[in-house]
Amino acid sequence: MRIETTPVPGLLVVHLDVHGDNRGWFKENWQREKMVAAGLPDFGPVQQNISFNATAGTIRGVHAEPWDKYVSVAAGRAFGAWVDLREGDAFGTTFWTELDPQTAVFVPRGVANSFQVLEDGTAYTYLVNDHWSADAVYANVNLLDPALAIPWPLPVAEMSDKDRAHPVLADVEPMAPRRT
Amino acid sequence: MRIETTPVPGLLVVHLDVHGDNRGWFKENWQREKMVAAGLPDFGPVQQNISFNATAGTIRGVHAEPWDKYVSVAAGRAFGAWVDLREGDAFGTTFWTELDPQTAVFVPRGVANSFQVLEDGTAYTYLVNDHWSADAVYANVNLLDPALAIPWPLPVAEMSDKDRAHPVLADVEPMAPRRT
Ligand SMILES: Cc1cn([C@H]2C[C@H](O)[C@@H](COP(=O)(O)OP(=O)(O)O[C@H]3O[C@@H](C)[C@H](O)[C@@H](O)[C@H]3O)O2)c(=O)[nH]c1=O
Ligand SMILES: Cc1cn([C@H]2C[C@H](O)[C@@H](COP(=O)(O)OP(=O)(O)O[C@H]3O[C@@H](C)[C@H](O)[C@@H](O)[C@H]3O)O2)c(=O)[nH]c1=O
Repeated sequence: MRIETTPVPGLLVVHLDVHGDNRGWFKENWQREKMVAAGLPDFGPVQQNISFNATAGTIRGVHAEPWDKYVSVAAGRAFGAWVDLREGDAFGTTFWTELDPQTAVFVPRGVANSFQVLEDGTAYTYLVNDHWSADAVYANVNLLDPALAIPWPLPVAEMSDKDRAHPVLADVEPMAPRRT
Repeated sequence: MRIETTPVPGLLVVHLDVHGDNRGWFKENWQREKMVAAGLPDFGPVQQNISFNATAGTIRGVHAEPWDKYVSVAAGRAFGAWVDLREGDAFGTTFWTELDPQTAVFVPRGVANSFQVLEDGTAYTYLVNDHWSADAVYANVNLLDPALAIPWPLPVAEMSDKDRAHPVLADVEPMAPRRT
C-alpha cells in the first residue's frame, strides 16, 4: 500500500495490495491504522454507499458534498475525475485517473467527484464521514462542460436528468469552508 | 431499512433500501445513525475488505475471527451461512440466508462466517471493527462438515486449501469471550 498526492490539494491516490488466487482476489480496501500511518486523514466514516452501474459508459457526477469521501471499485473498472470547487486559488483544478481494483482515492470535502464505468456491472463503493441528507448544501458542475475537458474514455451511456442539469464551471458557486 | 433477529444470538439481518434507476442501483450499505437507532450495534469499523469471486459456486469460510463483521454484496449474489462457535449453549447453532443486494448481515465476534457465490463476478464486501492480523486467534469449521448440513445451492467450484483443512464441528475448540 502506498499513498500519492495529486495537483488537487488534499486529494490522495491510494495504491492497494490485491491478493489474487484461484477464487478471485481479496483486498483490504480501507485499513485505518496502516493508512493513517501512511498519510491518509483519520476521516471517521459513518456511512458506506454502493452504486451499481449496469452498462459500460454510464457516468455520474460531478458532485461536491459537505463531507469527505473514500472511493474505489468492488467489481469492474471506472475512470474517475475530480474538480476542486472550494473557494480559493485551486478552484477549477482537475485530476483524473483510472479506478481499477488496485486504486482508491480520498476526496476531501468541497472537491467534486465523478466517474464513468469502463465495464458492464461495475460496483463503485465509498465511505463518507457524514450522513447524507437531501437538504445538505452541494456544489455540482456539469460532467460534459468543455471547460473541464475531462477525457471520458467511452461514449456516454446512461446518466441522470439531475446530472444533465448541473451548471458549467463558470456558473458554479464555490463551496465555502465548513463553519466551526 | 429494517433489522431482524435470527436464531443465532446477536446475528442480525439488515434489509436495505435499494434505489433502482436507468443507471443501475444505489444503496446506503451502512448508515450508522439510522441503523444504530434501528438496533444495530455501534460497532465502529476500522477496516473494509472486499473479496471478488470470479466463478459461481466459489465458497469461502467458515471463519470466526476476534472481531465483528458487517457483510453484504456489491455486485452479484451469494448464499451466506453462519455457525455459532462461541463457548456456551448456542455453540453449533446455524443460520443461512441469501445475500442479494437488499440484504446485509451483522456477524458478532465468535460466530463463523461463510458464503457461496451464486453468480460469476460476485463482489463481497465487509466492515470489521479490528485490524486483521495473520497471528490473531481464529476458530474455523469445515464448510462441508455433514453435521452442519448447510444446503449450499451450487456444486462447489473454487475453494482454498486452507478451507479444505478446517476441522469438523465436533473437533472445533470453542472461541472464548474477549478478555477485558
Ligand atoms: C448519495 C445518496 C443518495 N441517496 C438516494 C437518493 C436517490 O433516490 C438515489 C440516487 O441518488 P443520486 O444522487 O441520483 O445518486 P448519484 O450516484 O448520482 O450520486 C452520487 O454520485 C457520486 C458521483 C457522488 O460522489 C456521490 O456522493 C453521490 O452524489 O439514492 C440516498 O438515499 N443516500 C445517499 O447517500
Ligand atoms: C482476511 C484478510 C486476508 N488478508 C490476506 C491474506 C491472504 O493473502 C489473502 C486471502 O486471505 P484468506 O484468509 O484466504 O481470505 P478468505 O476470503 O478465505 O477469508 C475471509 O473469509 C470470509 C468468509 C471471512 O468472513 C473473512 O473474515 C475472512 O476470513 O488476503 C489480508 O491481507 N487482510 C485480511 O483482512
